[in-house]
Amino acid sequence: MLIIMKSGSTREDVDRVRDVIRGLGFDSRPLPVAERLAVGVVGYDEAPHPDLFEALPGVDLVLPVNHAARRVGRQARDGDTVVRVGDVEIGAGTLTLVAGPCAVENEDQLMSVARLAREAGADLLRGGAYKPRTSPYDFQGLGEDGLQLLAQAGRETGLPVVTEAVDEASLALVEEYGDVIQIGARNMQNFELLKRAGKSRRPILLKRGMAAGLEDLLMCAEYVLDAGNPDVILCERGIRTFSDHSRFTLDLAIVPVLERLTHLPVFVDPSHASGRRGSVGPLARAAVAAGADGVMIEVHPDPVAALCDGPQSLRPEEFAALAANLRELAAVVSRVRETVS
Amino acid sequence: MLIIMKSGSTREDVDRVRDVIRGLGFDSRPLPVAERLAVGVVGYDEAPHPDLFEALPGVDLVLPVNHAARRVGRQARDGDTVVRVGDVEIGAGTLTLVAGPCAVENEDQLMSVARLAREAGADLLRGGAYKPRTSPYDFQGLGEDGLQLLAQAGRETGLPVVTEAVDEASLALVEEYGDVIQIGARNMQNFELLKRAGKSRRPILLKRGMAAGLEDLLMCAEYVLDAGNPDVILCERGIRTFSDHSRFTLDLAIVPVLERLTHLPVFVDPSHASGRRGSVGPLARAAVAAGADGVMIEVHPDPVAALCDGPQSLRPEEFAALAANLRELAAVVSRVRETVS
Amino acid sequence: MLIIMKSGSTREDVDRVRDVIRGLGFDSRPLPVAERLAVGVVGYDEAPHPDLFEALPGVDLVLPVNHAARRVGRQARDGDTVVRVGDVEIGAGTLTLVAGPCAVENEDQLMSVARLAREAGADLLRGGAYKPRTSPYDFQGLGEDGLQLLAQAGRETGLPVVTEAVDEASLALVEEYGDVIQIGARNMQNFELLKRAGKSRRPILLKRGMAAGLEDLLMCAEYVLDAGNPDVILCERGIRTFSDHSRFTLDLAIVPVLERLTHLPVFVDPSHASGRRGSVGPLARAAVAAGADGVMIEVHPDPVAALCDGPQSLRPEEFAALAANLRELAAVVSRVRETVS
Amino acid sequence: MLIIMKSGSTREDVDRVRDVIRGLGFDSRPLPVAERLAVGVVGYDEAPHPDLFEALPGVDLVLPVNHAARRVGRQARDGDTVVRVGDVEIGAGTLTLVAGPCAVENEDQLMSVARLAREAGADLLRGGAYKPRTSPYDFQGLGEDGLQLLAQAGRETGLPVVTEAVDEASLALVEEYGDVIQIGARNMQNFELLKRAGKSRRPILLKRGMAAGLEDLLMCAEYVLDAGNPDVILCERGIRTFSDHSRFTLDLAIVPVLERLTHLPVFVDPSHASGRRGSVGPLARAAVAAGADGVMIEVHPDPVAALCDGPQSLRPEEFAALAANLRELAAVVSRVRETVS
Repeated sequence: MLIIMKSGSTREDVDRVRDVIRGLGFDSRPLPVAERLAVGVVGYDEAPHPDLFEALPGVDLVLPVNHAARRVGRQARDGDTVVRVGDVEIGAGTLTLVAGPCAVENEDQLMSVARLAREAGADLLRGGAYKPRTSPYDFQGLGEDGLQLLAQAGRETGLPVVTEAVDEASLALVEEYGDVIQIGARNMQNFELLKRAGKSRRPILLKRGMAAGLEDLLMCAEYVLDAGNPDVILCERGIRTFSDHSRFTLDLAIVPVLERLTHLPVFVDPSHASGRRGSVGPLARAAVAAGADGVMIEVHPDPVAALCDGPQSLRPEEFAALAANLRELAAVVSRVRETVS
Repeated sequence: MLIIMKSGSTREDVDRVRDVIRGLGFDSRPLPVAERLAVGVVGYDEAPHPDLFEALPGVDLVLPVNHAARRVGRQARDGDTVVRVGDVEIGAGTLTLVAGPCAVENEDQLMSVARLAREAGADLLRGGAYKPRTSPYDFQGLGEDGLQLLAQAGRETGLPVVTEAVDEASLALVEEYGDVIQIGARNMQNFELLKRAGKSRRPILLKRGMAAGLEDLLMCAEYVLDAGNPDVILCERGIRTFSDHSRFTLDLAIVPVLERLTHLPVFVDPSHASGRRGSVGPLARAAVAAGADGVMIEVHPDPVAALCDGPQSLRPEEFAALAANLRELAAVVSRVRETVS
Repeated sequence: MLIIMKSGSTREDVDRVRDVIRGLGFDSRPLPVAERLAVGVVGYDEAPHPDLFEALPGVDLVLPVNHAARRVGRQARDGDTVVRVGDVEIGAGTLTLVAGPCAVENEDQLMSVARLAREAGADLLRGGAYKPRTSPYDFQGLGEDGLQLLAQAGRETGLPVVTEAVDEASLALVEEYGDVIQIGARNMQNFELLKRAGKSRRPILLKRGMAAGLEDLLMCAEYVLDAGNPDVILCERGIRTFSDHSRFTLDLAIVPVLERLTHLPVFVDPSHASGRRGSVGPLARAAVAAGADGVMIEVHPDPVAALCDGPQSLRPEEFAALAANLRELAAVVSRVRETVS
Repeated sequence: MLIIMKSGSTREDVDRVRDVIRGLGFDSRPLPVAERLAVGVVGYDEAPHPDLFEALPGVDLVLPVNHAARRVGRQARDGDTVVRVGDVEIGAGTLTLVAGPCAVENEDQLMSVARLAREAGADLLRGGAYKPRTSPYDFQGLGEDGLQLLAQAGRETGLPVVTEAVDEASLALVEEYGDVIQIGARNMQNFELLKRAGKSRRPILLKRGMAAGLEDLLMCAEYVLDAGNPDVILCERGIRTFSDHSRFTLDLAIVPVLERLTHLPVFVDPSHASGRRGSVGPLARAAVAAGADGVMIEVHPDPVAALCDGPQSLRPEEFAALAANLRELAAVVSRVRETVS
């Protein structure tokens, strides 16, 4: 077990940590990790609970010794990674709102959503041109035509565009037309695609796989960073469980845990997680309250007629009202978090 | 499929619903449910998505025909159930904060937590005198002595007391000393205990089992109501999944779904769900933002020395700061929800 | 980590184990556990994989140091627990077949199933007089009348009777009329009921809860043994997962793991796990092949008309054919296991 | 709901089915599906349980109306798909044994395992040249060098080779050097890779994703068949659940369900599912008993030194003993299944 000290920690902080370790009957030894000081705990059969140390002054985080997340772990750098896309700063303490349709269907649909999203205060435009679909007989997206529409919508509204790549060929095109490259949940452990994403100059939005544990997710981001791309945004979008009142189970508890372990920004996608329009608002609010850096919301001008995921899409006016709420909530949460850990 | 109309719905509302049903190629027939009007959809192979109807004016909720939750379902009554305990009104639109130690350990511990909880603005005092523990060798609670201490703490602080019953004998004692009877997650489907709880004059706090689906939970509440006790508070406390960064996976998406389906109040317990002090604050905030009627927080004067669940307990001053945050957040959420569904 | 040696292990065996530990860079120390010798491994950050030791000569099993299963763990005694019920020896190396209806419905139904089960080679008769049902409006069992019918069927056929108790009152009656007391999955962690079962002179059939991990199950058996009853049969009956092609996911991998860790016999219930008649045969065969000591099969003379769980019940003639298969398979498996671990 | 009749079903069989439908209060209509007759059930709110029909004479299988598995579903053809690889016929009623190391490490390791596997009666040689690994810092496989070694081992032993492709480039090489192309669990929903696999002339071994439901798995096979490749072998390898005594939870109940729904052969991989050497034998036997067409076993000459998945690999002599057991068991199971559904 490694206890990583904050960069401004004092000699007294370190001594206090070592006293607690001694009090628990273990030995300790100081050692450097990246450019910071750490205290190693040795001589135990079963590791003491990390929360015993994380509350002590000067302690940044507690890691298992075999922690493999060398580059994405908080021990790797001071402060948070801020991903810059156009004028948007993701992870800099403000809430990023991503809005748009599940799939790009045609120019009218996309332009109308993009303009309304812009007016409602969205920061980024989302929309799929390559759609991984459970069935080969479902609409698979417009491909490069869809990317061109997205690029046009981005130019007209000034909103940077997030869109998904599903293999190396589509990634090259997304790189050309888009601003942020999404790797979807089903491809989270498509390691060849991650290695390729690591060579891109575009930020990567990496969605958590529906069977992925915390460490799985972090290691997939590690693939991207290790290949050279430092700009990864993690995104919780629900996991597979027995609970059947929502499409997936949104695992919001991962948000504060990721915040503690990694310097990367964290988004939440309540639309895919719940699969129900009526739950998107409450879950988006919950995500902001849990400390998410951004929220992704599906918006469609006519949800009933959508080619993909209609039942979970908000109408533009619903999104506008929700966006205002989320901004207000984020302000309270941000103030509040300064007073309470 | 049954579409239950709001009590103030108009003839036009009903006609609009029937038009949509016709447009989807199905037949409809109006019929009474409890004292309200419903529209039955017939003639389908696969039910249309309920969200297609829930957004229409005048529609209260959409239920499958075989819905068995006769008494807990929203179709059973107009408006929400408000559970009154002393001066506290649970489910009346204000946030209820429940605080206290996992287990009652001794008079000093309990009195100090109770007083600090009261000062910090808690509405109810929680504490276990009967503790269901995984191992027979773990501390099993003080039993009736613990109940007496709880009653004393309740009297001194004026806070009503919530405490768990684990069988018929302990339920009779909890009824005598306490104000709200908790049925824990491991006993959620202890149907004999539920039937007995249904004969009590005390409100029941029913925690969701860790393998319980939505319908399982609702039907357990139905056992209590069916046996004669109308005052049940449901409580989400995390489910068992593969995700191992928290003790259980807090399933906050159930909060808006329960709000749509049942008139009963809904609490959330982030302490047991996460099992980590550092996650309790973010998840409590998320619960309030998702629309929970109350939040249960474990508080202990000295978490490291706690006989039970120390790593997830907040110190009293941490709880005080969190309570203030949650009140502020609840005010924003409450205002916000009037403008957005 | 504790490495428990077999009772006949030699000095050379122990030395070899300690050499391997030294080779991995750790220290070791010999120490007694119950009446056997163990080797403790110390000085590691992360425990080496137990399989590295379990294959060594003389090693019985490898346990974490904090292993709480004092009485049910293999370290507690030499050899297997054999539960004797009438002439049936459960866990003695032969396959025990338990058959009967989900619920006792009436004399005709029960007697006809009991006779046919007997003819088909069943060892024990099962049938529920107290039925824990999800809905309060479902058939809850015949209660004491059902127990009397079971006792009568047991007398007429000579088959000992397994039936479920759901609280202390029903347990007292099951003790009187039945031969083996079943604690169902929903009551697995009803610890008060377990303590009461531990005071009974009847063997306990303990079904795994649908959210119970390995350690949860073992500790529930520990409650019973700790309270004085040594005769517990464990039963795997499926867990709650996202997989929706069967009612529960039958976790057969627990069978060899339990066999390694505990001396108690292990049954499998493929009927409740699958919920589909067509899957009961294949899963029963799989259970026997995985090494289960017994299999529980629901049998009903007219599955379509059953008051409970009809779709998963076999007709008596289907059970007869399956029973013959299982006996044949068990003979092969038993022979085979002598040659391969 | 569609009830598909066997190709040799009679007029009486169809009338009987329609009588049962009428008895349940629904209407029916006969209609052709592929080249067979089906009976459609109409007029229900909730579908009757399929098992009510599957036991009737002449009935082949029961499908929901919206069943999308057009090509992999049993309604698409009579009889089973038999995949031919060299002299091996997979799915033809005999047990196929696949053995080899997790990863190809070097010539000595591979050749020695290959020879011993051959002697022990394996039908196919497995071994990974491209390894999808959770961490970028783990051994990623030998790539094309590994494929060349596999091809050499295949030539020397006469065993056809199964090996994994992880993207389009590696798939092209696997096509050249190998005999069966494996798509791993993490790439199951890598739809672009599936489309490419559908253009191959090699059979595809498709492993179930760890969060994949039954329908997800079938639809991924549908992608391959729809793109032109009829030869797909499905493989159960464990799903992610809370149960932590094995690496994944082997979901054997899917074997009989797949057998009912699809004509494709089904394999089981107990090595990856359990992650423990001591459980591989029991689970392999269980898979055969459940009706699997083949079993994949990891074999390594020195498991402790393996670069990948050592703790779950059998030694060659352990595999030899197990292989003999499985053949013997398969013979019994095969005979047994003719007498019982």
